[in-house]
Formats: sequence, structure tokens, C-alpha cells
Amino acid sequence: MRPRKKKHGDERREACQDIIITDKTQIKSKPVIIEIGCGKGRFITELAARHPDKYFIALEKVPDIIVLAAEKIKNENIPNVNFICDDVKNLLNYFGENEVESIYLNFSDPWPKAGHHKRRLTYKSFLDIYRYILTANGKIYLKTDNRPLFDFSIEQLSENGFTMDNITYDLHNSEYNSDNIMTEYETNFSAKGFAINRLEARLFPAID
Amino acid sequence: MRPRKKKHGDERREACQDIIITDKTQIKSKPVIIEIGCGKGRFITELAARHPDKYFIALEKVPDIIVLAAEKIKNENIPNVNFICDDVKNLLNYFGENEVESIYLNFSDPWPKAGHHKRRLTYKSFLDIYRYILTANGKIYLKTDNRPLFDFSIEQLSENGFTMDNITYDLHNSEYNSDNIMTEYETNFSAKGFAINRLEARLFPAID
Repeated sequence: MRPRKKKHGDERREACQDIIITDKTQIKSKPVIIEIGCGKGRFITELAARHPDKYFIALEKVPDIIVLAAEKIKNENIPNVNFICDDVKNLLNYFGENEVESIYLNFSDPWPKAGHHKRRLTYKSFLDIYRYILTANGKIYLKTDNRPLFDFSIEQLSENGFTMDNITYDLHNSEYNSDNIMTEYETNFSAKGFAINRLEARLFPAID
Repeated sequence: MRPRKKKHGDERREACQDIIITDKTQIKSKPVIIEIGCGKGRFITELAARHPDKYFIALEKVPDIIVLAAEKIKNENIPNVNFICDDVKNLLNYFGENEVESIYLNFSDPWPKAGHHKRRLTYKSFLDIYRYILTANGKIYLKTDNRPLFDFSIEQLSENGFTMDNITYDLHNSEYNSDNIMTEYETNFSAKGFAINRLEARLFPAID
């Protein structure tokens, strides 16, 4: 998803600089709930609105996209979300061991070519980071319409210390749909008839 | 798999009656490890040989098949396996709450027609039985070459109180293959190029 250049992007980001943080000292409290790749922010906006007692940080590497998400949060006066405009590979610049309660991965780039598998956000090198920053009871929530990415993720999670539950290949027709929050992408693609895959992953051994 | 009638089947089963049990009072010790649908018994024979300190019971509903498995165990002088010739739906006639340590489901009938899904051995009604007889740390080990059955199983397990790990869509090329025991069916079908799917399921929440 490579967006057109937004008009007045720099000024608009400047206007959101109180919620787009650039340094880990600006993180208000820990542990935190993060979304990696928040896009235009509909998901994180709704999630934060439903859980006003929790604190959220949404990561998005594309400046002209994150400004849309940040503006949405400002317009709706939602106080419990901050943003980081950076690449996932720099996560450890912001979060240390046991500092993240949950990680949401929504419709991440599937990188379909076999040679690009190391770029998928559930590749081993990323799971190593997630495992490190997650709390002992931490969870990853993943959804995607891309079945090859989903299957790849299940195998990578299996091989890298995670156990999985609440797996479905058709979220919108499953029991897990009742509290589902649709992303912009999800709305579009499910309307076209694509089934949404969804799972939860926890550290192994699981502690409850 | 509907076998030809075995010659002298009744006499041969009679000769194995010391290891084919017909009543739960004949179960030697608990908890026990069971295979549901042992076929000709290569898997349970090897598993029992590798774990002489454990006690195994293999279930197979076809009399002319179970005799082949029982004869194999007798011929190899393996002392720690008993057989039950019965249908899985009668499992509770033999096992009570927390009496089973592990359940192996190897290449169960996929019952591919949608209307037959209740016959699949990972349908909810069977999972209810497994959950009841399994110990708190109990596990189900499932493998199949049938991907629709595998996906169905993952969803059913998710919906019925299980968490999963060590999932692979290609067992023979995975890190889990080192201690894999091939069934007769598995040898044939993997030689033809079919990938083997495999998972472990535990009760949720998991206790280690």
C-alpha cells in the first residue's frame, strides 16, 4: 500500500506531534498494547475507545498514512493512543523485555514471493522480538485474508515458542466475531467475499 | 478402509484374547496412552517399543484389522500394549475422567462430504469425550495427509477448549520429524508426494 502524497503532510503531522512519539521516554505507562502496521487507524481507534483504561501504541512506518490515523484519534478525542512512525525492525528502540501486553497484527503485507519470506511480520526474526517484549501472559492477535501468510504464520509461531488458540479460517462466520473490530482493509475485502483468518498466540508454556 | 475377510479370523483373534480386552476392569494401569484407529498397528507397536515404561491401549473397530495389530504385538513380544475392538463412540465404556495421558489420531477417516462432518474424529462430540478422559496435562497428537480434515480439526479444537502447538503442514520436512513414527498409510502416501499435516493439542488453559 503506497499512498499518494498527502497535501500538507508535514504540517498535518506537526499538528499531531503531541501524540506521535519519537522516543521511548515519551511512553506514558507500561505494559502497553501495540498494533504493528495501523494503517489509517480505524482498528486502533475503536479498540482504544472500547478500553479506556488501557494504553495503546500504534506503529506505522508510512508518514502520510500515520497522519490519517493520528488525526482520527485527535478528532475523536481519544486520550489513550500514541503513535510511532517507524519500522517494526526498530521495535526494540521503544520496548524492552516484558513491556508489551498484546500485539495486534492486522492484514500485514503477505510478501508472497518465497524469497521475501523474511520480510513477513511473523518470520522468526520478528517473533524473536515479540517474544522478548511480550509479558509472560502476553498475546499476539493476528488476522489476515491471505491464507498462505496465515499458514506460514502458524508454522513460524509453532517453531518459535508460541502456542495457538481460537484459530478460525472464517472469522466473520465464527464465534469470535462478536467483538471483532474491522479494519478498513477488512471491510473492503470481506465485502468481496474473502474469508478472514484469525488466531491468537501465546508464549509457551502458557500461564493463565 | 474396508478389508477383505481374513482367513481364520475368529481363531486368530481367539489366539490374541489375552491382549484384546473387552472390559474396563482389564485395563492394567492408569493413566494410559491410547491410539484411536490403530489399523494394522505399526505405529502403536513402535511407540510402545520406544516407551517400555508406559502402558498403551489401541482402539480399532474392524475385527479383521485389529487381529493383524494384535498378532504383530504378540510376535514382537511387546508387553505394554492392549487392544480394544470397539467404536470410538464407546470410549467412555472404558475410560473415565482424567484416565488418559495422550491420544493419538493418525490418518483418521476424513469423511469429506460436508454432511458427514459429525463423523470426523475431531468433531465437537468426540472432543467432548477426549477432554473428559484426558488428564489436565493431557495431549492429543494428530496427523493426517488430508488438509480439509486438518483445517476442520484446528477449528473444532479451537472452539472446544484446546490450545495447539507444534503445528506443521509438512511433517517430514519439519523439525518435528526426528522422532516421528510412520504408520503404514503414511509410508504409502508420503512416498506419493503427499505432505503430512501434524499438530499437538492441549487443554486450555495449559498447565506444564
